Amino acid sequence: MRTQVGIIGAGPAGLLLSHLLHLRGISSVVLEKRSRDYVERRVRAGVLEQGTVDTLVEAGVGERLLREGLPHHGIELRYGGAGHRIAFDKLVPGRSITVYGQQEVVKDLIAARLAAGGDIRFEVEDVEAHSLESEPYLTFGGERLDCDVIAGCDGFHGVSRPAVPEGVLSVYERDYPFAWLGILARVAPSSEELIYTRTERGFALHSMRSPTVSRFYLQVPADARVEDWPDERVWGELKARLESVPGFTLTTGEIMEKGVTPMRAFVAEPMQYGRLYLAGDAAHIVPPTGAKGLNLAVADVRVLTEALAAYFADGSTGLLDGYSAACLKRVWRAQHFSWWMTTLLHTFEDEDPYARRLQLSYLDYVTSSEAAATTLAENYVGLP
Amino acid sequence: MRTQVGIIGAGPAGLLLSHLLHLRGISSVVLEKRSRDYVERRVRAGVLEQGTVDTLVEAGVGERLLREGLPHHGIELRYGGAGHRIAFDKLVPGRSITVYGQQEVVKDLIAARLAAGGDIRFEVEDVEAHSLESEPYLTFGGERLDCDVIAGCDGFHGVSRPAVPEGVLSVYERDYPFAWLGILARVAPSSEELIYTRTERGFALHSMRSPTVSRFYLQVPADARVEDWPDERVWGELKARLESVPGFTLTTGEIMEKGVTPMRAFVAEPMQYGRLYLAGDAAHIVPPTGAKGLNLAVADVRVLTEALAAYFADGSTGLLDGYSAACLKRVWRAQHFSWWMTTLLHTFEDEDPYARRLQLSYLDYVTSSEAAATTLAENYVGLP
Repeated sequence: MRTQVGIIGAGPAGLLLSHLLHLRGISSVVLEKRSRDYVERRVRAGVLEQGTVDTLVEAGVGERLLREGLPHHGIELRYGGAGHRIAFDKLVPGRSITVYGQQEVVKDLIAARLAAGGDIRFEVEDVEAHSLESEPYLTFGGERLDCDVIAGCDGFHGVSRPAVPEGVLSVYERDYPFAWLGILARVAPSSEELIYTRTERGFALHSMRSPTVSRFYLQVPADARVEDWPDERVWGELKARLESVPGFTLTTGEIMEKGVTPMRAFVAEPMQYGRLYLAGDAAHIVPPTGAKGLNLAVADVRVLTEALAAYFADGSTGLLDGYSAACLKRVWRAQHFSWWMTTLLHTFEDEDPYARRLQLSYLDYVTSSEAAATTLAENYVGLP
Repeated sequence: MRTQVGIIGAGPAGLLLSHLLHLRGISSVVLEKRSRDYVERRVRAGVLEQGTVDTLVEAGVGERLLREGLPHHGIELRYGGAGHRIAFDKLVPGRSITVYGQQEVVKDLIAARLAAGGDIRFEVEDVEAHSLESEPYLTFGGERLDCDVIAGCDGFHGVSRPAVPEGVLSVYERDYPFAWLGILARVAPSSEELIYTRTERGFALHSMRSPTVSRFYLQVPADARVEDWPDERVWGELKARLESVPGFTLTTGEIMEKGVTPMRAFVAEPMQYGRLYLAGDAAHIVPPTGAKGLNLAVADVRVLTEALAAYFADGSTGLLDGYSAACLKRVWRAQHFSWWMTTLLHTFEDEDPYARRLQLSYLDYVTSSEAAATTLAENYVGLP
């Protein structure tokens, strides 16, 4: 079996890459170890930058996104007993975010690929990448797929990055001393916009997925387990943190899903080895505070598509050679922004009183200086 | 002996307070343990915010400042082999800084006080503050000075703050794992504007005091001693750090003075106890990176003058009661900004590769985003 681009992973990165390549007349096969049902239900990010929305719409897979996605023109920062709006419409006119679940993006992309006769193999076993330096090929479940290029889009725990020989990649990482407990609840959002809340009890985020489904996150200890968090405790803690502003009431409802997300940052450089190109979480992860993970993956795929299009058009390798450097500039900006949002809003057990006062002073500044608020806004909606 | 305001310390805070009170018809006596010669030669800060210049000019002590001070409309950030201008004239139009040595401000204020018959006692011994709760008085060298109010303007190591009973003040502090070696040299500045430089060898600052006197700072280990830094080593290290940009040559000359400044942050709250009001370094110090120390002292004195004027006019204590809170808002903003500038530009021995990349990404952002550059500029020239 032969294709031009062998893609490992049917998450947003791999599926979008396959779709964008198809639009350029480049063939690909997507190999995914999970089932279609699993990847279409996997709850992950839900905040799309303007550039991500533009990419999906231009690629013809934005019809439902534009219909069902919730455009947001601001977020709220809540601390010290008061809420402060970061108004994207005023600070970065014409740019906004759209709330639309990652699994919905995945559903739309799978539907588009299958409608176009695309080749996605679900539940394939033992995917391995071989001969990355030249004439690369993939093996899986006893089969062999020869390809010109391999795209590693299989996430942080995938097989792509470990296929790179030891010593080639430089790794940069940071573990945070806390995790996020994510909650999906069948209840209308209690606020129209996202609320990022800093309290002495820790951080909380009020988000949503649709007019009838809310998404919440609670800062919890790094070793927290879902079993430690029965529903009453979840609602109690969400109320204690989010109702820190007079007059705000959190509406509760049926909890559909709970999960603990580690707070971790990671970058592997370069994002390429031989004929293997890494994209999205396979190369870098950010703590979810700035909502950058999915958006970075889409940005990688945009760059990779252009580079592959040039390569397959006339064999030119300039863009492919520059792929890693082009992506890493944005990756490090997002790493920094995610660190910035995380340290601005979370409590740190080992922090001294001086550090806590600095944090509050910074919040006062971000919510009172137009320049400082703009730095948050322009990063949040996504820099060009 | 009796006066309305007994002022401890003839640094910029104490002298300016005495002068401003005089303009409001309020009497004061300034007690200083050092000689006049000493305080007039003590080399300290040299960057005056717009608001500080305005205060001195409005108070009639800005004549020489306006003649000899060097107005600056930008600073340079230098890192990664390139320089980037933070253009105050473009980012915060109408606001700038003025380079004018702190000891020159002190000279001007002493001259003004003495010309107006002001009472400054130099080289007084054993100053002590008593009875702070009511009918306060100061003792020194066998004499007693009764006053309505005491102003503690005697710096971090002074006697004022320790006169507050234990347990009253909350203290917040931070020590940095490095110090600054300050150098005063008889040589024309090699650049018209200040250059803040981040290199792998550490931070360096190129500054100036006049068209013929340059001021430099080098990040050095916290335990560095002046003896470790003979002139050749100083110039060698300054060149290694500042000449990191092609085409830039540092002109060397006679070194007039060297000193090691610890990098430390400190805040005592509240800035008041009974009839004692603390101002400037007596209540708070910042690392010198953001050039905020002197400017904070002047801001404190502005607030205290208004409060004392109201008090002596009709006995109203509202402004005096609000003195600490009014000052601390600005103090914490400056604390944060100084921490921000310090961590942005220094190397930290214990930092991991991830932290170093975040720092470089932040510098790239500050020098490429107008909003981010504006946050630096508006803090540097001084927020309203």
